Amino acid sequence: MTGNTFGKIFTLTSFGESHGTVIGVVIDGCLPNMLVDLELIKNDLNRRRPGQSNITTSRGEPDEFEIISGVFEGKTLGTPIAVLVKNKDQKPEDYSELKDLYRPSHADFTYQEKYGHRDYRGGGRQSARETIARVIAGAFAKMILSQIDIQIKAYVSQVYDIKLDIPYTQLDLDQTEKSIIRCPEPKTAALMIAAIEKAKAEGDSLGGVITCICNGVPIGLGEPVFDKLHADLGKAMLSINAVKGFDFGSGFASVLKKGSEHNDRFIQKGAKMGTETNHSGGIQGGISNGEDIYFNVAFKPVATLQIEQDTLNESQQPVKFKATGRHDSCVVPRAVPIVEAMTAIVLADHYLRSLVYKK
Amino acid sequence: MTGNTFGKIFTLTSFGESHGTVIGVVIDGCLPNMLVDLELIKNDLNRRRPGQSNITTSRGEPDEFEIISGVFEGKTLGTPIAVLVKNKDQKPEDYSELKDLYRPSHADFTYQEKYGHRDYRGGGRQSARETIARVIAGAFAKMILSQIDIQIKAYVSQVYDIKLDIPYTQLDLDQTEKSIIRCPEPKTAALMIAAIEKAKAEGDSLGGVITCICNGVPIGLGEPVFDKLHADLGKAMLSINAVKGFDFGSGFASVLKKGSEHNDRFIQKGAKMGTETNHSGGIQGGISNGEDIYFNVAFKPVATLQIEQDTLNESQQPVKFKATGRHDSCVVPRAVPIVEAMTAIVLADHYLRSLVYKK
Amino acid sequence: MTGNTFGKIFTLTSFGESHGTVIGVVIDGCLPNMLVDLELIKNDLNRRRPGQSNITTSRGEPDEFEIISGVFEGKTLGTPIAVLVKNKDQKPEDYSELKDLYRPSHADFTYQEKYGHRDYRGGGRQSARETIARVIAGAFAKMILSQIDIQIKAYVSQVYDIKLDIPYTQLDLDQTEKSIIRCPEPKTAALMIAAIEKAKAEGDSLGGVITCICNGVPIGLGEPVFDKLHADLGKAMLSINAVKGFDFGSGFASVLKKGSEHNDRFIQKGAKMGTETNHSGGIQGGISNGEDIYFNVAFKPVATLQIEQDTLNESQQPVKFKATGRHDSCVVPRAVPIVEAMTAIVLADHYLRSLVYKK
Amino acid sequence: MTGNTFGKIFTLTSFGESHGTVIGVVIDGCLPNMLVDLELIKNDLNRRRPGQSNITTSRGEPDEFEIISGVFEGKTLGTPIAVLVKNKDQKPEDYSELKDLYRPSHADFTYQEKYGHRDYRGGGRQSARETIARVIAGAFAKMILSQIDIQIKAYVSQVYDIKLDIPYTQLDLDQTEKSIIRCPEPKTAALMIAAIEKAKAEGDSLGGVITCICNGVPIGLGEPVFDKLHADLGKAMLSINAVKGFDFGSGFASVLKKGSEHNDRFIQKGAKMGTETNHSGGIQGGISNGEDIYFNVAFKPVATLQIEQDTLNESQQPVKFKATGRHDSCVVPRAVPIVEAMTAIVLADHYLRSLVYKK
Repeated sequence: MTGNTFGKIFTLTSFGESHGTVIGVVIDGCLPNMLVDLELIKNDLNRRRPGQSNITTSRGEPDEFEIISGVFEGKTLGTPIAVLVKNKDQKPEDYSELKDLYRPSHADFTYQEKYGHRDYRGGGRQSARETIARVIAGAFAKMILSQIDIQIKAYVSQVYDIKLDIPYTQLDLDQTEKSIIRCPEPKTAALMIAAIEKAKAEGDSLGGVITCICNGVPIGLGEPVFDKLHADLGKAMLSINAVKGFDFGSGFASVLKKGSEHNDRFIQKGAKMGTETNHSGGIQGGISNGEDIYFNVAFKPVATLQIEQDTLNESQQPVKFKATGRHDSCVVPRAVPIVEAMTAIVLADHYLRSLVYKK
Repeated sequence: MTGNTFGKIFTLTSFGESHGTVIGVVIDGCLPNMLVDLELIKNDLNRRRPGQSNITTSRGEPDEFEIISGVFEGKTLGTPIAVLVKNKDQKPEDYSELKDLYRPSHADFTYQEKYGHRDYRGGGRQSARETIARVIAGAFAKMILSQIDIQIKAYVSQVYDIKLDIPYTQLDLDQTEKSIIRCPEPKTAALMIAAIEKAKAEGDSLGGVITCICNGVPIGLGEPVFDKLHADLGKAMLSINAVKGFDFGSGFASVLKKGSEHNDRFIQKGAKMGTETNHSGGIQGGISNGEDIYFNVAFKPVATLQIEQDTLNESQQPVKFKATGRHDSCVVPRAVPIVEAMTAIVLADHYLRSLVYKK
Repeated sequence: MTGNTFGKIFTLTSFGESHGTVIGVVIDGCLPNMLVDLELIKNDLNRRRPGQSNITTSRGEPDEFEIISGVFEGKTLGTPIAVLVKNKDQKPEDYSELKDLYRPSHADFTYQEKYGHRDYRGGGRQSARETIARVIAGAFAKMILSQIDIQIKAYVSQVYDIKLDIPYTQLDLDQTEKSIIRCPEPKTAALMIAAIEKAKAEGDSLGGVITCICNGVPIGLGEPVFDKLHADLGKAMLSINAVKGFDFGSGFASVLKKGSEHNDRFIQKGAKMGTETNHSGGIQGGISNGEDIYFNVAFKPVATLQIEQDTLNESQQPVKFKATGRHDSCVVPRAVPIVEAMTAIVLADHYLRSLVYKK
Repeated sequence: MTGNTFGKIFTLTSFGESHGTVIGVVIDGCLPNMLVDLELIKNDLNRRRPGQSNITTSRGEPDEFEIISGVFEGKTLGTPIAVLVKNKDQKPEDYSELKDLYRPSHADFTYQEKYGHRDYRGGGRQSARETIARVIAGAFAKMILSQIDIQIKAYVSQVYDIKLDIPYTQLDLDQTEKSIIRCPEPKTAALMIAAIEKAKAEGDSLGGVITCICNGVPIGLGEPVFDKLHADLGKAMLSINAVKGFDFGSGFASVLKKGSEHNDRFIQKGAKMGTETNHSGGIQGGISNGEDIYFNVAFKPVATLQIEQDTLNESQQPVKFKATGRHDSCVVPRAVPIVEAMTAIVLADHYLRSLVYKK
């Protein structure tokens, strides 16, 4: 009811405040007897963590995780899996200046109005540090999906006005992790990095777009009429901090096509049926059709700037504010594993849901 | 679990197949002792119904509704409200030709794979006729919202390549219903209608964009971290047939702004706090901040064409298909009340959720 | 949230007021492609219906049901199944005398306090007529269970002070339906009937106990720690009108045994493991162990009497009240199919839940 | 779906295995800005803990709790509250003898069949150590209930054949905690203690009954038709380890009363309405009526004995088994705070649910 739990069969419950003791997650509904891939969890946490390159924040905590339940002798028990990551690098004094002002385009004001108090320590639950819980749960979801060979690959397709205009089918997505910006095309990646470095030097911030590709998704995932697969993916993406938009398949661009241009024709692909084009983005009527699922996620420029801004404090008095902490100038490279994690969680949940009605 | 129920406190459960006996809905969690506005339900159903103008399908059923529980002496009882709309204009023979082929970009294939059978009668639950349930539930949601003066106004902002490029703040939204295309600006509306008429004459179809504005939303609706208000709005919109994308506030366009341009500065608005600009779209950190909420919903061109198309049948043999039934060339004018209804349902649900923790 | 839906995967949503238009139910999560056994539904409704014998109320409506969605060509579609039973025998004038008084031990007072109004027409949703929805949903649940040969048989084991003291294992449960009191042992049945007839003549009412036996339940149904199989059965039974208690296996009587007498010893039963005794009632640690599940459900004497009683009206003034409508003197014979239905619903739900994690 | 979460608005998610690292709980939906009563949590954990007297197991861990999220500066934030208790006294070797046998009337067999593996370390999630999570969540629930002056008092009313036959209204419930058996009547308490000591000396075990009284419950808690207040209380109690039965108000004994004896007559109690008798147990039609709520919970004799028993191992070979660990001969004194905790959780959840529809 309070929005801290996601999923229907494979569920995660996220807890912990940004500058409290821990960020934690309870993952429930995971398959029992599954080998736990600790390297995968570690690797995804590292891909998310601050300080991984010179274009991300320098807040350098290592994000070591501890599994405190649900795993025994290296395997899942089928009981709830709780995982903790300690908040080692707490410096509450960094935030004392924020104690009674409202940062522009932050959630300080709405949280205070909703809950009747301030957790001024770095934003509490509004902080993107909460996404650690998602990345960990996403790793367990990926372990389930790897059993049926579903692969999820996300990459940065736009930063500010620099757009990678090559369709994903013509990209080598294995190059994504070789670039600190997580764009698989080196020339575009270089331009993106330069743009971020410029913004950083100016104390400003940039937004971007992440594109995500899922292949190997079996036919039949997604539940009409409200839990359409793309509706649940959309909600998952929109729940990530700083996300402003989601579209899948032909997306917003579909509007510029006529029906006769947009329809995906059924053809034989070997022994199986498939579609010649894939404007549907692998989903028809809310149910996966066996083609690649692909979608875009738009991130706004982060609100925290190293530039002095005008705002109000709790007494509605004008004050100046300039962030002194360590912050990203552009979140999209670090958001790639978060997008993948939320995607994996939605697909794992719908996969487990589909098992009930398996023919 | 099967996706036929939406909402957490204010919930609707949709049932009925397109060419079965009825489309029905059970609305639960509505406030008791509320006067039921029958005219509102009737009006919204009429705005959704086919045959309302010469740019929509000519399928002419009247969509008369019957409330069969939950209302007594004109008021809600607090018990579940069940409402039925009979499917009067059933002509199953219209669909016999579809019995064993897969219409391109339709859900015939995915439904058959998922459920192991075909309900070939006009698409069963994949048909947009299901949205009757949403419009009825939306009317009850609007009755709740009218108690706290929330207003929801949607309009068509794009059809194919004709885009209304005026911000909503400079439009007279009371003009929307005066145009059969539901675009509040008469010149753009005329161009949109001409484009649809041309596509109709060609047997083709067009997509479009609906923009929705909510004003009067109190501060504090939305539940971090997964049930952010815009995440639930996004899911609601993406669950509507033919929707391919959703963005709110500055949306995808936010990527082209720097943080220093994009941040909304807090200012005093009379005795209250507000923001000078509203790139946030009325939502910060997933919680409404008292400014207008606005968002865009992209609809693909409908898949059913009056043009002959190649496809496959159940034996994977190539067949030709040309729709002979009555179909819209562009769904957006009829989708306006559906977008409003789903918006009202999300806001009513979050409003009731907020009452638990009301200070 | 408002308690009108039961179950997690196999769910029913009940709607309709006692003297409104209909009693209805939406059954969701049922398996697709299942043959619908109309005779089973009809038979269970007849076993529940008033006027079936001279020891039940003479209210004689036939309870004809209509399936309005989810079934096509005799099979379940996998979409929500909505079923209606019209309230033909409405005589609202019968209830005018109740309009402003509170019947003793009825829910008139608590409903009015909770909802802020009176639906005086026969009690609205507090009426046992609501259980029609359960019996219909139970019939669909039984269709699922019959696929895996689970059988559920309930019978009356006590009326007032007449108790059937023979263990179920020594009874011929096929005799149950041959007696209007639904007690499988003829001599006890005759005593029970005589007691009810005496109470009826006096305008008084009697309570009783129903015992329910489930055999063929596979090992592994039930979810620790909160959704233990017996906990969900208990909730299901306690949600039936007039139920005051539930115990399973050795139940309350277990307290009078020492551990050494009570423990069920594991033994080989052919190729399988089983237990020598079954004090556990077929459930250990909340999970079915393959032995028979059995439990007792206590029903209080019904509150409506043909004897004049003192009570208060809405102005807190003393008034006299004597029921003039048609009411049962003892509900247990008609409650037998309701107990079976709720049992089937719990078992079907847990069976479907178990399919997710099936080895 | 996997049964580790309880409640709809006030929810707890329990995690941790008996001999793993921790027992933990996430409490969500708690009111924000509530002072956290650490002494209450500590006291209730001490009332539950083993080794508190010579009639309970001597396993002596202190059960120190740590709140790791959701509380800041002594108050609840409105975010999820996670609390851990470390399992300090792990001695896995104690359990090595159990590794491949099935203890009689334990859940070793059903867990292994359900999950496909053994967590032989003291029973994993089937262990009563899991109830630590409930006691902690119950303490937070009590903090909410104390705001509206609801009081919950449970006591032991029967051990084996020693029954306290005095109605609760004639007992001084403040005496309960003065006795190690938690029976408020000293003479009966002495007999109960003697019986347990005798059973302990014999290596045997005894069951018992706990009676629970709630006063100050406002009118209107409970949701018809499935979430009746007593149905949710019943489920909560039946989910506690070793519970075999639940009845409320007149309970099973109601069967021996005629309707004319059993009905509760409405009378004026000062300015308010009430009932002269309270056979209804404070609940009518599933909704609290303002009178005391009272109910009984039956616990079987614990299955672990210090007597040699015959059983089977995983190869279905006969083996002898005699427990050597530290175990209670009778769980009821330690179960008193668990019954209270689960009661508080149900009442707090229904109280928060009622706030949505508050007039």
